[in-house]
Amino acid sequence: MENTVTAALAIIGDEILSGRTLDKNTQFLATSLGNLGIALREVRVIPDDEETIITTVNYLRGAYRYVFTTGGIGPTHDDITSAAIAKAFNLPLTAHPEALRRLETYYAGRDIEFNAARRKMAYMPEGACLIDNPVSIAPGFRIGNLFVMAGVPSIMQAMFAEIIPHLQGGALTLSKTLTIALPEGAIAAEFEALQKRYPAIAMGSYPIMKEKPCTSLVLRGTDSRRLEAAFAELKRFITSLEGEIIAEE
Amino acid sequence: MENTVTAALAIIGDEILSGRTLDKNTQFLATSLGNLGIALREVRVIPDDEETIITTVNYLRGAYRYVFTTGGIGPTHDDITSAAIAKAFNLPLTAHPEALRRLETYYAGRDIEFNAARRKMAYMPEGACLIDNPVSIAPGFRIGNLFVMAGVPSIMQAMFAEIIPHLQGGALTLSKTLTIALPEGAIAAEFEALQKRYPAIAMGSYPIMKEKPCTSLVLRGTDSRRLEAAFAELKRFITSLEGEIIAEE
Repeated sequence: MENTVTAALAIIGDEILSGRTLDKNTQFLATSLGNLGIALREVRVIPDDEETIITTVNYLRGAYRYVFTTGGIGPTHDDITSAAIAKAFNLPLTAHPEALRRLETYYAGRDIEFNAARRKMAYMPEGACLIDNPVSIAPGFRIGNLFVMAGVPSIMQAMFAEIIPHLQGGALTLSKTLTIALPEGAIAAEFEALQKRYPAIAMGSYPIMKEKPCTSLVLRGTDSRRLEAAFAELKRFITSLEGEIIAEE
Repeated sequence: MENTVTAALAIIGDEILSGRTLDKNTQFLATSLGNLGIALREVRVIPDDEETIITTVNYLRGAYRYVFTTGGIGPTHDDITSAAIAKAFNLPLTAHPEALRRLETYYAGRDIEFNAARRKMAYMPEGACLIDNPVSIAPGFRIGNLFVMAGVPSIMQAMFAEIIPHLQGGALTLSKTLTIALPEGAIAAEFEALQKRYPAIAMGSYPIMKEKPCTSLVLRGTDSRRLEAAFAELKRFITSLEGEIIAEE
């Protein structure tokens, strides 16, 4: 696991912490990063608070290969992510000329006033690279190993698509799931013994609340032969327990 | 805001970080705590890894009034939360006699073997108080300001209902939302000016991606008179901009 490429996500948003909004960005990024061979290792949901953003970003960017943020890069006063990140990197917050040009062209073409609030969206730490925003123009940015994206899922997803070519993934983590009509407690000992025989395959057990207790057994690893071998053993012992296999993915 | 009662949540689960499962516990707890006058200030999603659990729990329990964890208290080998938390508190991990009795009775009544894996669910840091689990018996526990709950949402929610009487909330945060058919950039300056006139009311602006750009303006605070006054001013300036009000909650 030493060569694993790791990532962390900071979700910046009072609206998640108040319960107003259900966060869907974690699942999207977790899945998308996984498909690139990048393991999401930590997510932090934090408020729109400058000190918290600075502390969080500075910790995460030292601890993980890539760090992503979502939220707080719009035109209103509660959008403080870019300014906080400039402080975290100890860099001046300046208008990115190309971002300014894009925004100017966009609003001119729509006969909308390019006011101070909209101009604010061009400000980022000096030296940041733009992340294109094909949805609503105002770009995200990259600085060092940090990628700063919008919080609105459709925009975040479009920005992430722009980022993909810039990421260096590691070995793909493959996954096999067996869902069985047995409770966790009935298979725990054998499942643990299987884990011990296959230390390189991560094995997780997840109860499912149905009329009768069911369990999803998830095997994950980068070596497809080991994964298939472990999965075959898993199926053999479930069959030996006369457990019904409900699904296999 | 000095008297605010704060909370943090640690979501312990590889299944969230792999993208396999969408976390819904954050939104439930954020809302439920808010209804009790407790502000959820931070959420961390971390893997089923002992060192990470210890570090995270020890940081959060020092930084916030209440800390909640979800996940990792089942019978299988990947359920390591209880043991990790015993280490975090530097307490022995022992079988709680009442937890053991409940589990024993439950399985005896169903003619299910009370094996070592199921017995493991009675183990927790010495001196922990039980959190009842009316769904599937195996209890959660409280130790100090930390509440350890199951990860399955239906069980977590049942456990949280048991916890409520033990929490001391602060002033309720009230919320008013105005959704308008104007983009954020059109109202940003006036909205910021409003925020400056009402420093005790937190004001957030959230774009909505529809055919035409809409914005939800959210005002939150504990003083209902100030909140109503700020909201009335907000409506006045939106009307003065000839902005259409789509919804008011």
